[in-house]
Amino acid sequence: MKTDIQIAQEAEMIHIKDVAAQLGIEEDELELYGKYKAKLSNELMERVKDEKDGKLILVTAINPTPAGEGKTTTSVGLGQAFGKLGKKAVLALREPSLGPCFGIKGGAAGGGYAQVVPMEDLNLHFTGDFHAITSANNLLAALLDNHIQQGNVLGIDPRQVIWKRCLDMNDRVLRNIVVGLGNKMDGMVREDHFVITVASEIMAVLCLAEDMADLKKRLGRMIVAYNFEGKPVTADDLQATGAMAALLKDAMKPNLIQTLEHTPAIVHGGPFANIAHGCNSVRATKTALKLADYVVTEAGFGADLGAEKFMDIKCRMAGLKPDAVVLVATIRALKYNGGVPKSELSSENLAALEKGIVNLEKHIENLQKYQVPVVVTLNSFLTDSKAETEYVEQFCKERGCEFALSEVWEKGGEGGVALAQKVLETLETKDSRFAPLYEDSLSLTEKIETVAKEIYGADGVTYGPAAMKELKRIEELGMGSFPVCMAKTQYSLSDDQTKLGRPLGFTVNVREVYVSAGAGFVVAITGAIMTMPGLGKTPAAYQIDVDDDGVITGLF
Amino acid sequence: MKTDIQIAQEAEMIHIKDVAAQLGIEEDELELYGKYKAKLSNELMERVKDEKDGKLILVTAINPTPAGEGKTTTSVGLGQAFGKLGKKAVLALREPSLGPCFGIKGGAAGGGYAQVVPMEDLNLHFTGDFHAITSANNLLAALLDNHIQQGNVLGIDPRQVIWKRCLDMNDRVLRNIVVGLGNKMDGMVREDHFVITVASEIMAVLCLAEDMADLKKRLGRMIVAYNFEGKPVTADDLQATGAMAALLKDAMKPNLIQTLEHTPAIVHGGPFANIAHGCNSVRATKTALKLADYVVTEAGFGADLGAEKFMDIKCRMAGLKPDAVVLVATIRALKYNGGVPKSELSSENLAALEKGIVNLEKHIENLQKYQVPVVVTLNSFLTDSKAETEYVEQFCKERGCEFALSEVWEKGGEGGVALAQKVLETLETKDSRFAPLYEDSLSLTEKIETVAKEIYGADGVTYGPAAMKELKRIEELGMGSFPVCMAKTQYSLSDDQTKLGRPLGFTVNVREVYVSAGAGFVVAITGAIMTMPGLGKTPAAYQIDVDDDGVITGLF
Repeated sequence: MKTDIQIAQEAEMIHIKDVAAQLGIEEDELELYGKYKAKLSNELMERVKDEKDGKLILVTAINPTPAGEGKTTTSVGLGQAFGKLGKKAVLALREPSLGPCFGIKGGAAGGGYAQVVPMEDLNLHFTGDFHAITSANNLLAALLDNHIQQGNVLGIDPRQVIWKRCLDMNDRVLRNIVVGLGNKMDGMVREDHFVITVASEIMAVLCLAEDMADLKKRLGRMIVAYNFEGKPVTADDLQATGAMAALLKDAMKPNLIQTLEHTPAIVHGGPFANIAHGCNSVRATKTALKLADYVVTEAGFGADLGAEKFMDIKCRMAGLKPDAVVLVATIRALKYNGGVPKSELSSENLAALEKGIVNLEKHIENLQKYQVPVVVTLNSFLTDSKAETEYVEQFCKERGCEFALSEVWEKGGEGGVALAQKVLETLETKDSRFAPLYEDSLSLTEKIETVAKEIYGADGVTYGPAAMKELKRIEELGMGSFPVCMAKTQYSLSDDQTKLGRPLGFTVNVREVYVSAGAGFVVAITGAIMTMPGLGKTPAAYQIDVDDDGVITGLF
Repeated sequence: MKTDIQIAQEAEMIHIKDVAAQLGIEEDELELYGKYKAKLSNELMERVKDEKDGKLILVTAINPTPAGEGKTTTSVGLGQAFGKLGKKAVLALREPSLGPCFGIKGGAAGGGYAQVVPMEDLNLHFTGDFHAITSANNLLAALLDNHIQQGNVLGIDPRQVIWKRCLDMNDRVLRNIVVGLGNKMDGMVREDHFVITVASEIMAVLCLAEDMADLKKRLGRMIVAYNFEGKPVTADDLQATGAMAALLKDAMKPNLIQTLEHTPAIVHGGPFANIAHGCNSVRATKTALKLADYVVTEAGFGADLGAEKFMDIKCRMAGLKPDAVVLVATIRALKYNGGVPKSELSSENLAALEKGIVNLEKHIENLQKYQVPVVVTLNSFLTDSKAETEYVEQFCKERGCEFALSEVWEKGGEGGVALAQKVLETLETKDSRFAPLYEDSLSLTEKIETVAKEIYGADGVTYGPAAMKELKRIEELGMGSFPVCMAKTQYSLSDDQTKLGRPLGFTVNVREVYVSAGAGFVVAITGAIMTMPGLGKTPAAYQIDVDDDGVITGLF
């Protein structure tokens, strides 16, 4: 059996200008990064902006398990399958984060014969977008501490700095640090924190900004600290906006690569729906809709995080409307949810499947609340039995969902034709009457409670005292109309990662709250979720290598 | 008067493949980054490796002053002038560091009509080389702390970790920090430090490595800490080498851009000769020598730092031999060295010139010790008087140096023809019998003292107790044969930045020493030099902006 990276490296890529040509993009409208990567120019985006929109298909999944689900794999395979059917389709995916590639997560380019390539480039530095975000984030931090050092005219309270430094690295010792030790010229001592780059507000701002003017407006209003009077201090107050925008000039442009079958894939912006809003950029999605008849996009982790934020944050803000949702599950993951250990997932076990399918059931119910047609797909494994597959199919049909099997990992686009046909049929026969889950006018606690009860299935929400106080301050600042961006473990519908299936009788605990005034949402951190991951006992980095000819191994 | 960025933005660049064609490089041997930047492929470097070498010309300068010297400007102008004379020439320059662009230093692309372009790209992210170094550096740090967290099998002593994290940012509060605060899962508490990316040993390793195999060997032997028994722990011990090399795969490839007159410019690797070795990469220089008849390279800051390290570290290790040295000075800077305040440099002042020219005198004497022919050039300003210029010319001739005036800032290549002709004449008539200043076999303290006495003009060297102890340990580790890499203020020949001219009667104080086992040199930190700069009262970042069309302003 070939590994993903072997399949990817053996792929015959075509020149990216030929990939672009499939979408009617001229070579001159591309900014090449080698032969197989390009950025879409501002001129292109301007040229197509009045074209008719294609159909928007969101791919999401049940809660992730160690058994594997294959959301990106299914997205890529579905895009390839549209190609097999002669349809003009484009993928609109998220960029992987570098840090976790060295941890346990591995890359995020799909798998098997449904991958985007060049996968090593994508998983490592790609076109530098995340590095630009890291630089802009840390420039703002440096300007903030320098302002304090140089006399602190704005009266920034060092105990109330909320802007954090960032690195695209899994590095737990940077979660809580003290900076400014040494002498007078080495700065003012204060407690500080690093988050992983994708959790930076700048990632969200970049992904939500419509254009450069909007980017600057959003960057400028980001709150970095409170002053001694308790008033917010913004990036504009620190005169940091222009320089940050200059650093983000190229990162604002969506990237184009290809699948193993040369389907165009626009890959741009933010993963990590557990701690961020986890969607690719608005500009990429909107441009994709202008360039093709079918746009396949994805949102991170399970539908409780990714899809909820896609609907309630991204679509709400950008005026987007999904036409259909594809919900990905695997028999193995459903059995894992039913209590079967990872080592025993290969044997047929209908009892466990029946027990675990409640996770899928809850996600179906949730997605139906957004009034968008749902197609459930099983990302098939050789070990799935006929009885198991039929059971899932029947289960979905009883709940008003379409169903299709996907074999894209093994067969590429060909293995996704059944799914693509089901999606096309759904788009033709079922209307999307998309509406977000809650109204802007609800209070912040009402919004948090709506998500917790309606989506997670919680009985209620408790708040730590600091969170309660901060919610009050945010309402007072006039930002109570913002949607909420929940930070929660991806492994459970609840905020406790050990609760699989469909947990009942639990409450969600909000321990920390802050406003992302530039992004335009309020982040509520629940349970034990971390904004800076760590490395495991045997990090993936140990296996990664590159030979004398530059061929990388061990990246997965 | 147009600003540098205005001149650069008005420039009509040609496609980088046409720039490359001047050197006989095929389009297929380039990896394009947009239309105006490219990386040179490994295949190209392999193809030309047996070609005959061109002539290597090093451009260096007197000690920098606020009056401005124009080393990069002169380098670029000299390259353009060779083009005017119909010679096949290429520049081999250093990449600017991002952090200081937001501080006071500004960019490093030359000035006036002697610039490399696109200057905004070059000064910001360029092709991401420094970001790759930052990632590799911080991955190693994360793996180190993770190793301690996961049981510390190697017995790393947290008090003896010497590997530092890095960011390409001027951020003084990160000089001295405490990491690992919080709970058990947040790591082990220890003191830590950030340096600016260009001061990372990985920058030096990248610049000195001959190829991927050499890079990995050097990365692997980098010492990151000592264990409880006092034995060194390396990157290889932490199993970090392969993953770091994978991150550096593309950063290893030299970048190609152009001057305002389309002269090819290979720009690759490390600035900051005050705290690092400060030379562009060996691969870039060697490739440049294969591609053209004349290669103009530069080394950072004054000749006491940049040229000394170029000769004693880079040329020694890589087997390179400079054929001529161009030493840049300005009348203004010499008068500043003679005690004239910045506001009064525009008036003729022969007395001050006579007093300040001792700085130039010392650099001439120093460079002559390497037995390479020296051409002194005055980077001319409109305010220079004829008498002043003639005085400098006469002074140089009396010391066996060639002399030429350079007007490249105002006139581009045309203004450098006199200098280029003088350099060509020198190459034809004078032999380079290059030899480094000291032998490998001297002890480390003898080497430090040789540089301090012979180059800086010091009476002697004093050592802090920690430095003395570390020197002993390095000798015991068998690394006493390494050359020394002095970290010293660039503003004075001494280690006290207030001493201008040609200081006498001083001693150099070495306060900290560490071995860069991967780079293959021993760093001696003198005086008050910092490996992480800070921002000033009014950082340049305040002025930088980008408009809705992506045009950057305020970068200089």
